[in-house]
Amino acid sequence: MLNPWADPGRPTGERVAALLAELTLEEKLAQLVGVWVGISDGEEVAPAQHDFAEPLPPWDELTKPGLGQLTRVFGTGPVEPLVGAKVLAETQRKLVANNRFGIPAMAHEECLAGFTAWQATVFPVPLSWGASFDPDTVETMAREIGRVMRDLGIHQGLAPVLDVARDPRWGRTEETIGEDPYLVGLVGAAYTRGLESSGIVATLKHFAGYSASRGGRNHAPVHMGPREFADVVLPPFEMALRLGGARSVMNSYAEVDGVPPAANPDLLTGLLRERWGFTGVVVADYFAVSFLETTHGVAGSPGEAAALALAAGIDVELPSVRCYGEPLAELVRSGEVDEALVDLAVTRVLTQKCELGLLDEDWRPESPAVLRGEPVDLDPPALRELARTMAERSVVLVDNAAGVLPLAAPAKVAVVGPCADDLLSLMGCYSFPNHVGVQHPEVALGVEMDTMLAAVRKEFPDAEVTTAQGCEVSGDDRSGIAQAVGVARDADVVLAVLGDRAGLFGRGTSGEGCDAEDLSLPGVQGELLDALLAVGKPVVLVLLAGRPYALGSYRPAAVVQAFFPGEEGAGAVAGVISGRVNPSAKLPLQLPRTPGGQPTTYLHPKLGAASGITSVDPTPAYPFGHGLSYTSFELSDFASGDGLPSDGEVEVSCSVRNTGDRRGAEVVQLYLHDPVASVTRPVRELVGFARVELDAGERRRVTFRLHADRTSFTGRDGRRVVETGEIALLVGCSSEDIRWERSLRVTGEPRVVGHDRVLVTPVEIA
Amino acid sequence: MLNPWADPGRPTGERVAALLAELTLEEKLAQLVGVWVGISDGEEVAPAQHDFAEPLPPWDELTKPGLGQLTRVFGTGPVEPLVGAKVLAETQRKLVANNRFGIPAMAHEECLAGFTAWQATVFPVPLSWGASFDPDTVETMAREIGRVMRDLGIHQGLAPVLDVARDPRWGRTEETIGEDPYLVGLVGAAYTRGLESSGIVATLKHFAGYSASRGGRNHAPVHMGPREFADVVLPPFEMALRLGGARSVMNSYAEVDGVPPAANPDLLTGLLRERWGFTGVVVADYFAVSFLETTHGVAGSPGEAAALALAAGIDVELPSVRCYGEPLAELVRSGEVDEALVDLAVTRVLTQKCELGLLDEDWRPESPAVLRGEPVDLDPPALRELARTMAERSVVLVDNAAGVLPLAAPAKVAVVGPCADDLLSLMGCYSFPNHVGVQHPEVALGVEMDTMLAAVRKEFPDAEVTTAQGCEVSGDDRSGIAQAVGVARDADVVLAVLGDRAGLFGRGTSGEGCDAEDLSLPGVQGELLDALLAVGKPVVLVLLAGRPYALGSYRPAAVVQAFFPGEEGAGAVAGVISGRVNPSAKLPLQLPRTPGGQPTTYLHPKLGAASGITSVDPTPAYPFGHGLSYTSFELSDFASGDGLPSDGEVEVSCSVRNTGDRRGAEVVQLYLHDPVASVTRPVRELVGFARVELDAGERRRVTFRLHADRTSFTGRDGRRVVETGEIALLVGCSSEDIRWERSLRVTGEPRVVGHDRVLVTPVEIA
Repeated sequence: MLNPWADPGRPTGERVAALLAELTLEEKLAQLVGVWVGISDGEEVAPAQHDFAEPLPPWDELTKPGLGQLTRVFGTGPVEPLVGAKVLAETQRKLVANNRFGIPAMAHEECLAGFTAWQATVFPVPLSWGASFDPDTVETMAREIGRVMRDLGIHQGLAPVLDVARDPRWGRTEETIGEDPYLVGLVGAAYTRGLESSGIVATLKHFAGYSASRGGRNHAPVHMGPREFADVVLPPFEMALRLGGARSVMNSYAEVDGVPPAANPDLLTGLLRERWGFTGVVVADYFAVSFLETTHGVAGSPGEAAALALAAGIDVELPSVRCYGEPLAELVRSGEVDEALVDLAVTRVLTQKCELGLLDEDWRPESPAVLRGEPVDLDPPALRELARTMAERSVVLVDNAAGVLPLAAPAKVAVVGPCADDLLSLMGCYSFPNHVGVQHPEVALGVEMDTMLAAVRKEFPDAEVTTAQGCEVSGDDRSGIAQAVGVARDADVVLAVLGDRAGLFGRGTSGEGCDAEDLSLPGVQGELLDALLAVGKPVVLVLLAGRPYALGSYRPAAVVQAFFPGEEGAGAVAGVISGRVNPSAKLPLQLPRTPGGQPTTYLHPKLGAASGITSVDPTPAYPFGHGLSYTSFELSDFASGDGLPSDGEVEVSCSVRNTGDRRGAEVVQLYLHDPVASVTRPVRELVGFARVELDAGERRRVTFRLHADRTSFTGRDGRRVVETGEIALLVGCSSEDIRWERSLRVTGEPRVVGHDRVLVTPVEIA
Repeated sequence: MLNPWADPGRPTGERVAALLAELTLEEKLAQLVGVWVGISDGEEVAPAQHDFAEPLPPWDELTKPGLGQLTRVFGTGPVEPLVGAKVLAETQRKLVANNRFGIPAMAHEECLAGFTAWQATVFPVPLSWGASFDPDTVETMAREIGRVMRDLGIHQGLAPVLDVARDPRWGRTEETIGEDPYLVGLVGAAYTRGLESSGIVATLKHFAGYSASRGGRNHAPVHMGPREFADVVLPPFEMALRLGGARSVMNSYAEVDGVPPAANPDLLTGLLRERWGFTGVVVADYFAVSFLETTHGVAGSPGEAAALALAAGIDVELPSVRCYGEPLAELVRSGEVDEALVDLAVTRVLTQKCELGLLDEDWRPESPAVLRGEPVDLDPPALRELARTMAERSVVLVDNAAGVLPLAAPAKVAVVGPCADDLLSLMGCYSFPNHVGVQHPEVALGVEMDTMLAAVRKEFPDAEVTTAQGCEVSGDDRSGIAQAVGVARDADVVLAVLGDRAGLFGRGTSGEGCDAEDLSLPGVQGELLDALLAVGKPVVLVLLAGRPYALGSYRPAAVVQAFFPGEEGAGAVAGVISGRVNPSAKLPLQLPRTPGGQPTTYLHPKLGAASGITSVDPTPAYPFGHGLSYTSFELSDFASGDGLPSDGEVEVSCSVRNTGDRRGAEVVQLYLHDPVASVTRPVRELVGFARVELDAGERRRVTFRLHADRTSFTGRDGRRVVETGEIALLVGCSSEDIRWERSLRVTGEPRVVGHDRVLVTPVEIA
């Protein structure tokens, strides 16, 4: 007879309870920790070296009571995929053999813009997903990312990032989907749904508030009140849980009004579990439990840190045993921490393992890839095609004032700038090459890619394409500017390819720990651009950048904002420049006018906007939702119901016609303004959008069904409320390009709404 | 028989109740409004023209039911003091004659850094008061300011500003006392006590949160949670109420987490009156009631704005009848607003008028100055002497790395820079000349003053003193830099006098509405400084500035930070340069290293400091509390008790010896660090200070009595708590120049403390 916990025929709860009853305290706590491993030369895993990692006992001793999580088998260096899968399987086999009940570990990996492993497809970054306004393609992308990971034996992906951009100086802005909670939530939920549909556990991060850290400095305190937290920070998490089915959540590092999220039971238990009903596993961001002691100062020892985090609702310490290991064990043994709290966390972990089949009698460590035994292509044509689609849909044509784009058969093109011939400038910080690869320069990039220079040469085979770097991405070496000016002078048109090189902790100009003091172009790139503009030739500014940069002082002929478009990004940008690709993306955050004056947000109340009351003009150079096309769209025949019952919905519709001569897509945007409310409200807030593809001359009808819940906000008493009275609905093609506006009344009684409220504005395109 | 309300022999409550019972609704509401008046050519007051002012009925009609407040009789233009006092008396006489019960108006004026009127003493700005660490002198100053105002018939002064500096980009940073709540509170309470002791009603502003507006933009939303609000923003108000006896409070404009203070009953009634016991009058900042409708969007009409503000606790609308006039009357008549709310506010206003003697039968409108009938000197020698003392004690010698100061008999001194020969650069935005005078350039300045150039000429009568402007304070005209360089080249030493010109709403580089995008020196002054430094002569950088500017990229021989030192400021700075004045001031806020990366504060938790976790270094160029002297001080013989009972106190003491050869003063600073607490705590927090004057060789003993209440903070549940366990006490001469540190335990039981807690750390200097 099977052990009851190993019997797939029994209910999960029964199986987990049966196993839990057998575990010693040490075996329980072993399920609540992860260890950062790396593949050594001998093709075995071993604890990885890391700045924050504590010394660990030998592997067999460490894993004797079992192990909750394996951290980033594929993530510490370049690993040939099949080799990695085999090593992972072998490691699991040893783990299973080594602990009394044969429990394998969960294996988790980073997978934000693609599986963060050598040779895996490098997709565009989240800012690009936001720019696409195309949740469906994002969902497909996430599903394909997950399939690759499942094939290798991985269970959990540490994505998506659902932080709403609040200060673009923050280095991780590139990891956000933008500055609007609804856009972040809808796209983030799509990613979550896609990843979960592959079988991979999606991990929503960072819960919550991280992106608003002071001065945009990584880990700095977040100054925020409960209303902003509820209305701006939380909605994407609600959406990804309810609409995406995420099974894991990771805490944010940064304290909010003095309380680190990893030690906040109101957040991780009261809100997340009790009010929202989350039943999955909460994992700690790396070393966040230790940080309660070492940097937040809310715990006096590793044990106190563990006790705080466990009580708050952190189930698993990653990737460390420093707090949840022996220190927590001691506190449980001494009675200072109730073992019932440990049991609760272990139950959640084992439930997840059980649901993933890891407790099944017939579970085998060999992943499908290992069983096939054939070399694994982590960047197969289908994924590459998807990367191309995502890239093409996310390149924003921001400005074409001089009408220079699309470039018609130029004779001589100069492609200049530090990002012109640099593959790494096309990828975010959480791409393998920038995250890990730069520490292994001896290893090739891992994926086939074109730089912008190569892509332009392909795009314009008949043109003479010249190039110059001009300057580095960062630093103050101006010695190359003169040569770049010379190259520009000899060309018919200049593509100035500027922006960032992403990296970790100061190894780049964007990415985790790479924060900016202001939003001027990094290094001396602004001077390079000024010098190029002074030449007098048409300059197309191409930005490969992880954050918005201040553009108010430049007057290029055209501006193309590509964020980090991934391995197919150069071709997508070149296609937009040539006109082969008709751009359809929109800015997921505004591009500022000036480098200083941050933070800003398009979600400002009336007093947050420019006026005589401050000498600082916070209006952007280009607004949220803005983006051009090579065709034109007419919005007409607007209609809406005359009122909105406070518990009902109203239809808002319009016709969109492609009035140009080529196929293209417009993102029709529905905004809300609440002119009088009990608390201040944004002058404009996105409540619906529809990406509409149209052939030349084609017309379609877009209908939004806006539920009154979508007008709700957190009122004076902390409860979310639908208030009655006048609202304004605005339909347009950007937050400032409003084509139609009408006032109507929310009728009936004010209503308090909760987590079961309507989160989405359905759109019909007929 | 007297009317009961006019009988000084009766209790105030009885008199006010008797009068209230007689008033019509219109007469009541008339007590709740103020009108902005100006003195016209005919020496009569009339409603002043103002951008925000609504059209008003003729004066007699307007004031028929009475009038609560007269706004700034002396503040709309240059008024000869005796003439102004006579006009005010005449106006009061008419008001009294015109309303049924003969109630005069309160007359209020601005008086931040001196009475803000033509010819009145211009004192240093609040940042300078903070720099002095000398509450006693500030108290004396405020009393003298009040005496002058009382002499002219004024009742209320709209000062002090108790906003704690949170983002130095904010234009009103110059009006703050610094970035530390204890320093702001102690100095602010001293100012309040001084002003109140003259008989003038002090008005604490801006209640609360204004200084933390987003991006440092005036009126922009404040992002802040309740703990930061309670621990950083509120304490100075508590101190000025309890220790200073303020009788009025003015709301802040800026919304906090979506709620405008003028519409926040929890703040203005629940906290201020019910918990703190405030019984005075809450006045609206100018037009703040209207703003609830016109810019915050929390009211749909002037009447709704009035209803919200009245219910929140705003007693008096200033300086306007737009909301509290007929719109509020209509709502009361229709029953939508309870007249009892109106009665409450009127009772407060009449109580204050009664206590000021304005209801007394024998009250006469003629002020002492009018009764004397002689010309009034608003800048008499005693006040000028006080202005000099304040200035000398507030000039911070920030850096003297090259040992160039004090300047010993230089042969040739170049005094260059846009502030070198500019009187207005010595004064803040709320000085009469910058506030009002610049709109009346035809009128002389009003007070006798030296520019820095003139003061240097006086200070070094044997030196050849040359000058050049170099550039304007703002703008990008570089044409004068070359000449300045030439002047510098010919000199032995260069005094680079840079900084701000204060003004209102964009008319300056510092002051109300003059916010900065970053902390680089305004205009091209940074380039001027670079050019001067390149000459190779010793450069003494003198900053006349309303905010801290980034100094990290400059290496002058010495740095003197003077903020806006007022009418005697140039001499004080020159005295510091020559050594005639031994500097003793300390920085009330840190001077940043770089222009971007704001906001920062020295009150950061450990994670807010620099580390590998962010590429942005937020450490300052010069820390909070830093300042040099021409003599040297030794701190020794440190002692403290071994523990601190959670309801008791501990003595911390040390000896301070002047080890140099001249008299000087050191500010001994006591800091607290709480290494483990239930919420994150600052790495260092000022809890006591003592300005100690010592002759050469003299030694004195400084003893702080630190009560456990001073270690309290707002805990997880929102209550202020003294936690037990280890704390560290640090004694030093700046927040980074720590001479002694010890750990001790707070013993006993944790204690919840309230508004009656100990707010001050007494210091004995023996």
